[in-house]
Amino acid sequence: MQTSSKYTYAVIGTGAIGGYYGGRLAHAGREVHFLLHSDYDYVREHGLQVDSCDGSFHLDNPLIYKDTKDMPQVDVVIVGLKTTKNAMLKTLLPPLLKPTTLVLLIQNGVGVEYDVQKMFPGVQLCAGLAFICSAKSEPGRVNHQAYGSINIGNYSCRSAEVVQALLGDFNEAGIVAREVEYNEARWRKAVWNMPFNGMTVVMDTTTNRLLEQPEMLHVIRQQMLEVIHAAWACGATGIPEEFADTMIQMTLEMVPYSPSMKLDFDFHRPMEVYYLYSRPLQIAREHGASMPRLEMLEAELKMK
Amino acid sequence: MQTSSKYTYAVIGTGAIGGYYGGRLAHAGREVHFLLHSDYDYVREHGLQVDSCDGSFHLDNPLIYKDTKDMPQVDVVIVGLKTTKNAMLKTLLPPLLKPTTLVLLIQNGVGVEYDVQKMFPGVQLCAGLAFICSAKSEPGRVNHQAYGSINIGNYSCRSAEVVQALLGDFNEAGIVAREVEYNEARWRKAVWNMPFNGMTVVMDTTTNRLLEQPEMLHVIRQQMLEVIHAAWACGATGIPEEFADTMIQMTLEMVPYSPSMKLDFDFHRPMEVYYLYSRPLQIAREHGASMPRLEMLEAELKMK
Repeated sequence: MQTSSKYTYAVIGTGAIGGYYGGRLAHAGREVHFLLHSDYDYVREHGLQVDSCDGSFHLDNPLIYKDTKDMPQVDVVIVGLKTTKNAMLKTLLPPLLKPTTLVLLIQNGVGVEYDVQKMFPGVQLCAGLAFICSAKSEPGRVNHQAYGSINIGNYSCRSAEVVQALLGDFNEAGIVAREVEYNEARWRKAVWNMPFNGMTVVMDTTTNRLLEQPEMLHVIRQQMLEVIHAAWACGATGIPEEFADTMIQMTLEMVPYSPSMKLDFDFHRPMEVYYLYSRPLQIAREHGASMPRLEMLEAELKMK
Repeated sequence: MQTSSKYTYAVIGTGAIGGYYGGRLAHAGREVHFLLHSDYDYVREHGLQVDSCDGSFHLDNPLIYKDTKDMPQVDVVIVGLKTTKNAMLKTLLPPLLKPTTLVLLIQNGVGVEYDVQKMFPGVQLCAGLAFICSAKSEPGRVNHQAYGSINIGNYSCRSAEVVQALLGDFNEAGIVAREVEYNEARWRKAVWNMPFNGMTVVMDTTTNRLLEQPEMLHVIRQQMLEVIHAAWACGATGIPEEFADTMIQMTLEMVPYSPSMKLDFDFHRPMEVYYLYSRPLQIAREHGASMPRLEMLEAELKMK
């Protein structure tokens, strides 16, 4: 049973992800406090525009801030930062936290929650796995092109009701949200993320071009199986090997696609090599699983 | 016991390799018939110049040809072609062959002799493994910069004396040549060739830069172990795992180096992916050995 809440929200990282999900919540009438950086002056003047395939909207006077020190404590913090900036959470998060605050990390990779939990031992964490094509095209403007659902995995939230209320808020705001088992969800997403993010960067190409070459398709499939076997070793035993074929089939049916790491590379932004490769490889290793092809890909990415 | 012979020689592929070794033999007074292509007119006019760290020399009037049909049958054919051109052997070789002719393939990779033998079932073959830095800098001019020794492995020569006589001829011409066990020699060379040729191309870098990055050094070492274990499966059981460390140490002590495949890539020439990767991978697979990292490298190279 999902019932909506009276929760207040803060968004750290008001970009393609935070701007979209936070924007939808605000548009639905939630109290949402946005942390902005370079866009602050523009949004104060012009508001926040969300161009969306599911219906565009404009927030005339969103609650915006330049510093989390000026923001109120909230019930839910949505983190939409790239994981490359996670060291900043150490200073960004504390002003927003009360004892019951839930932090939703809508971020890529494996191991993020473990590391954030270490920084903030008492804080309640959920993982948000976004299935969305979205970009921040220009200041104060989010461009949501396709999909948009979010899976939420409970990492350390002490109340199942809180997670349900969060889902209720998202759904009421027009976002398809559902709860998933945390560990399996993170690894499931890695099955697609680990092969395609890195290989499109190293080969400077798109997903479809990779799959057009029989040898590369074979390698991608083997990389997916490496992730699935590592997931098993790490306790996520519910991912069948056939999931690799499902992911390949899905990708073949997609339009030519540049994953987020490829976009980061093309626009000379830091790549999320750590949480997409180094950390999952390390976690897998701790559980006795090796991913030789993805370890090689990590080394290649580190030289890029 | 090596004694020199009265053998006559033909060189197919008068480039960095064929031009150097054939040139030394001719310079030492051997009868050497050179097949030339684009350089023919230049060499007819100006002769063949070999600039060598071991002593430069000039052949004023080498025996040169545009077509093997005009060449005599010889005792030894030296093939210095890139393996990418091996399909041409079908037409190039026959005019040079008598029943006793020995063909010395100074070429890169694993599986070359097997495939050439299939084209010419009766012909006697030896593998030549050249340890040399040499380039054809301009028409009619070979530039031999460093090293220069050659290991010769008997693949299907029916007479041990013939191989010894060949070694004698080479040594008399000032080339350090010795006999090695064929199968192990091919795989030994692959231990260095397979990691460094491909990785320098995919990462667009030199050997030293690869080894400067700890993750990449680890991957290179793992790739070398893949080759060593594949070699074991293919009967070359004499290569110890420590050979990987020896090769890495040797490479660390070398000047920054671009392997032949990297030079081919930089100069937009066809790369020897087939005999450096596809064929050894296939042979290893037939013997139950898998090389996952090198299979991934093959796929990456095929997209280059």
